[in-house]
Amino acid sequence: MDDTPYSGRFEAGEHRFAVRVYFEDTDAGGVVYHTSYLRFMERARSDMMRLAGVDQRAAMERGEGSYVVAEVNMRYRAPARLDDDLVVVSRVDRMSGAQCLVHQRVMRGTQTLVEADISAVLIGPNGRPKRQPRQWIEAFERLKGTD
Amino acid sequence: MDDTPYSGRFEAGEHRFAVRVYFEDTDAGGVVYHTSYLRFMERARSDMMRLAGVDQRAAMERGEGSYVVAEVNMRYRAPARLDDDLVVVSRVDRMSGAQCLVHQRVMRGTQTLVEADISAVLIGPNGRPKRQPRQWIEAFERLKGTD
Amino acid sequence: MDDTPYSGRFEAGEHRFAVRVYFEDTDAGGVVYHTSYLRFMERARSDMMRLAGVDQRAAMERGEGSYVVAEVNMRYRAPARLDDDLVVVSRVDRMSGAQCLVHQRVMRGTQTLVEADISAVLIGPNGRPKRQPRQWIEAFERLKGTD
Amino acid sequence: MDDTPYSGRFEAGEHRFAVRVYFEDTDAGGVVYHTSYLRFMERARSDMMRLAGVDQRAAMERGEGSYVVAEVNMRYRAPARLDDDLVVVSRVDRMSGAQCLVHQRVMRGTQTLVEADISAVLIGPNGRPKRQPRQWIEAFERLKGTD
Repeated sequence: MDDTPYSGRFEAGEHRFAVRVYFEDTDAGGVVYHTSYLRFMERARSDMMRLAGVDQRAAMERGEGSYVVAEVNMRYRAPARLDDDLVVVSRVDRMSGAQCLVHQRVMRGTQTLVEADISAVLIGPNGRPKRQPRQWIEAFERLKGTD
Repeated sequence: MDDTPYSGRFEAGEHRFAVRVYFEDTDAGGVVYHTSYLRFMERARSDMMRLAGVDQRAAMERGEGSYVVAEVNMRYRAPARLDDDLVVVSRVDRMSGAQCLVHQRVMRGTQTLVEADISAVLIGPNGRPKRQPRQWIEAFERLKGTD
Repeated sequence: MDDTPYSGRFEAGEHRFAVRVYFEDTDAGGVVYHTSYLRFMERARSDMMRLAGVDQRAAMERGEGSYVVAEVNMRYRAPARLDDDLVVVSRVDRMSGAQCLVHQRVMRGTQTLVEADISAVLIGPNGRPKRQPRQWIEAFERLKGTD
Repeated sequence: MDDTPYSGRFEAGEHRFAVRVYFEDTDAGGVVYHTSYLRFMERARSDMMRLAGVDQRAAMERGEGSYVVAEVNMRYRAPARLDDDLVVVSRVDRMSGAQCLVHQRVMRGTQTLVEADISAVLIGPNGRPKRQPRQWIEAFERLKGTD
């Protein structure tokens, strides 16, 4: 048995990433702190990219740029609590030019707790938006079309 | 000289709250991590409420409920960096029923780095939205009208 | 295939918990921020307790108290970086009275990056240290003795 | 009136840095999460360095290296809660070679809540410990000797 960190998976064109809630994610209100969901979503997007063959750290180190979050539109419907089992379901809605639009929802069972539309933009080493490599876009197209 | 923690102030109906960027706020991209701005904004809203006479901890302990974030719509325009001096400028756009709408922007000098519309909702001990006390609403009305 | 969150495992009396490094864990120095290791260790301890049959949330909700960290002695040997695969290896060194002593190290492959001795204390609802239930102590004894 | 971020001060050879507890700092146990104190302490050390004339960001950008935490020995005595007014009191115990030893305690009024000995090491761009500049050491000597 090995100790490879958890990785999510694609199903029906969506990426599914399970998360358990720890003390670090909660606040004195007894529920998950509102920014923690954004951290869960970033983990899910990073994992989704890696599964699609995009190595963010290598791209950054080779000076090919890295994604930054450009816009977040998020609705909180119900709170998660300590020790909850959650799933972040992510769907790439559009990739064009420098921009990648992702719809993400945090589920507990069949209930949607938080829903967000995230726009990420690839930024080159000069600090400016940069066209996403064709092979990245094609990789996501393939993943969306398969189980 | 005493050691009272920093507090912001109202000017022309807006609340101004200065923040310095520390290592904890940054990420390996060399800039401020995208969720850190939401933490800065929450500090500013908490401070704004206290200046308006709303004691969130006391309200929570007395079982009068507490605010939770219901919606976040946020645009990132330019990155902040380690050691930057920032100001969070907050303006209560509407308070009615259980809901409080706040417009917040994170500034570095005269430049707006991040802009957000935040909807917070007062939740009672039973987990349901609860009408905000009249004196809280009136307190904000007064602050908006003065320097 | 299901979406159960990742869980660690016991091997040779030690608990092993894999962690991948995300942007949220890093800082502008390009490495993992020094408090992030403590978050990784807390996840590992929580998981270890659950595997041992200790339900922290239920205990908290039933008013049976919860563990708080009483002492941390931590040495940083080498930095972890974005996207690294890490393993937190935890060993309960002693459980007696209210106190639980855990030795934890964060490994990348065979290299120890960070090492810590953590003392956690069970605190009752009255805010005072509380003797740990006999069945919790016995559960850990059993786990330490097995693969 | 301006919006300069809060800065601490030296008194009797110690650095004093006030902190207010926000929701982001707390956890579902209703108290301050145990790693938050390390974040408070890092803010205080960063501020202390800047007051002493050490510009960490400029040093990092000029390739002169940056401090990393090498060892933390921390005792938690009593919990802080939401909205508490705290003061981090820091004292440089020794600076020699690459190492800087700092004693820090988090106070609420006259009560010490958390106490820590932190060892930070200056790391050069090659990733190795680097002798601290003489003027930095002298600056701290002066600050320790004055009110």
